[in-house]
Amino acid sequence: MIASPYLLYLGHSNDEVGIKTSRGLAVFRPDDCVGEFRHDDCGLTLDLPRMGFAEAVAVGARTLVLGIANAGGRMSADLVGDAIAAIEAGLDVASGLHHRLREEPAIVAAAARHGRKLHDVRDPRPGIPVGNGKRRAGKRLLTVGTDCSVGKMYATLCLERGMRARGMAADFRATGQTGILIAGSGVPLDAVIADFISGAIEDISPARTDDGWDLIEGQGSLFHPSFAGVSTGLLHGAQPAALVLCHDPMRAHMRGLPHYPVPGLRETLEANLAVARLTSPEVRAVGVALNTSKLARAEAERLCAETADALGLPCTDPFAMGVDSIIDRIDQCFEASPRVATLSL
Amino acid sequence: MIASPYLLYLGHSNDEVGIKTSRGLAVFRPDDCVGEFRHDDCGLTLDLPRMGFAEAVAVGARTLVLGIANAGGRMSADLVGDAIAAIEAGLDVASGLHHRLREEPAIVAAAARHGRKLHDVRDPRPGIPVGNGKRRAGKRLLTVGTDCSVGKMYATLCLERGMRARGMAADFRATGQTGILIAGSGVPLDAVIADFISGAIEDISPARTDDGWDLIEGQGSLFHPSFAGVSTGLLHGAQPAALVLCHDPMRAHMRGLPHYPVPGLRETLEANLAVARLTSPEVRAVGVALNTSKLARAEAERLCAETADALGLPCTDPFAMGVDSIIDRIDQCFEASPRVATLSL
Repeated sequence: MIASPYLLYLGHSNDEVGIKTSRGLAVFRPDDCVGEFRHDDCGLTLDLPRMGFAEAVAVGARTLVLGIANAGGRMSADLVGDAIAAIEAGLDVASGLHHRLREEPAIVAAAARHGRKLHDVRDPRPGIPVGNGKRRAGKRLLTVGTDCSVGKMYATLCLERGMRARGMAADFRATGQTGILIAGSGVPLDAVIADFISGAIEDISPARTDDGWDLIEGQGSLFHPSFAGVSTGLLHGAQPAALVLCHDPMRAHMRGLPHYPVPGLRETLEANLAVARLTSPEVRAVGVALNTSKLARAEAERLCAETADALGLPCTDPFAMGVDSIIDRIDQCFEASPRVATLSL
Repeated sequence: MIASPYLLYLGHSNDEVGIKTSRGLAVFRPDDCVGEFRHDDCGLTLDLPRMGFAEAVAVGARTLVLGIANAGGRMSADLVGDAIAAIEAGLDVASGLHHRLREEPAIVAAAARHGRKLHDVRDPRPGIPVGNGKRRAGKRLLTVGTDCSVGKMYATLCLERGMRARGMAADFRATGQTGILIAGSGVPLDAVIADFISGAIEDISPARTDDGWDLIEGQGSLFHPSFAGVSTGLLHGAQPAALVLCHDPMRAHMRGLPHYPVPGLRETLEANLAVARLTSPEVRAVGVALNTSKLARAEAERLCAETADALGLPCTDPFAMGVDSIIDRIDQCFEASPRVATLSL
């Protein structure tokens, strides 16, 4: 367990995509984030108090989260120095980088010297089983996408928040490093050995009998030639009762692959439903989530309405407009979950 | 490079499936296999001369191949002892087990002491790239299956042999431990990190400009809930011009999953073509390979004829009946490859 609250590391970053893990924590776990650490040349902020390591410890911080992605996923000498300084000030360190903290002898030595914990979030737990495809109890919703990085984690977390606001039992199941840091557990699916993709998902979302929902963060896309294997195993392991399709209308081509066009929404939905049916024959689509952060509000609303009409599904920007329409559809499609919070009158 | 010729290990095995790697080598690389090592309680044989380690060295053996699968994939104390005795007699050791030779200190020490090499075939090479899906030159054929272990490796190797017999340039590309030991190279796809499945295949079957064929060994099945992610990434990485569908007509249910029926041949073919089209839009099916080893010959021939009629594709048992009909279809579908061997008259 990673001890909170956190100090979020921005370092020298000037690339918005590079700090998406720190930002994810600031947005979805604001109560666990006491401040941000950045150097003078860092042009970005999470609108948290800027503080040094000793200062953060003084206000209660327990862990420095290296919520950034460097080019190549490696830790620079500079980053290693900051991590050691944080350890010496009394902080644990958590990282989602490919370059593991435990592979950096100076960091390991400093942690040993000061009795601090290191958390490499991208290490899958040992002993993940092979998937068995057995039907298991419980209602699971999986977000799927036309492409990578189209808002699947945001949509899933917004659904968790929205369902809980209605008193429904609902739990986010993380499959990526940012999600794991936000949730405190999960599986870094991109780091699992190929034979265990579906088994890893069966493992983090086991049978559930309280009639609540597991909301599983999607990864990749069936139409992304680099990562469709991950998406396929995730669909099979999830055994979803419900799918939410995520899409970024500003995406010009598949992420990182200018020679591949983004597939159509209907085509994406049909392909995902077909693959999911192998382990979950009754699976159905319950909504579409658009990332409209780069559009004017009126344009975004027009696009959602058009998409909803075209696909016959509720369509929203979960972060900007909420998820009520999708939860309404879930309530229509599935026996309404008992509300876990009751009012005493 | 694993030094040949080989001594094939059977040990105490009495399970035919457990010795499939040793048998694969005996069948497809007979010239590289000088003998078999088995204890008195081993009820199986590859019909090779039985010999001890010193005797094998005396007739020229260079490497002991641990071509067996133990329950749990671990090396027993007994197996470790045999490996050390082989090293002391002057043999290198190669293994495809999950339990690595290099994880067994006594074996590592013995190899160091005697200057012998250890080969863990199930280790992917470091630095496998993420797949990029870029169209690359060359003709590639991939075997796909209704299930795991239905004869994909045998069919692929028989196609290599058959094409070479006609003077075509054709090379087997291995994706499993047995295939890697037979070919001397390849990628153990089941041991690759999930994000790199398609990249691993792009890596072992790069652009080819001699107008010959890469024949890529398939893995798993799109309809196997445990392993369909591997099969999906393999289809995308392979960019196959041609698919051969492999099937075991005696299979009662999906391997290891009694709750999953085996899919139909037509359904399997259509699903594989649809997935393959993402990176290879012109892909086509060129044949069906049935494993009829448990059927009488007349029954096997009847089944092949019926299957060919139903699917409009040549159908054969590659090992028992040859692959001429499939190569004829390939020659009809694709510009005939120039023959690399010419007769001097």
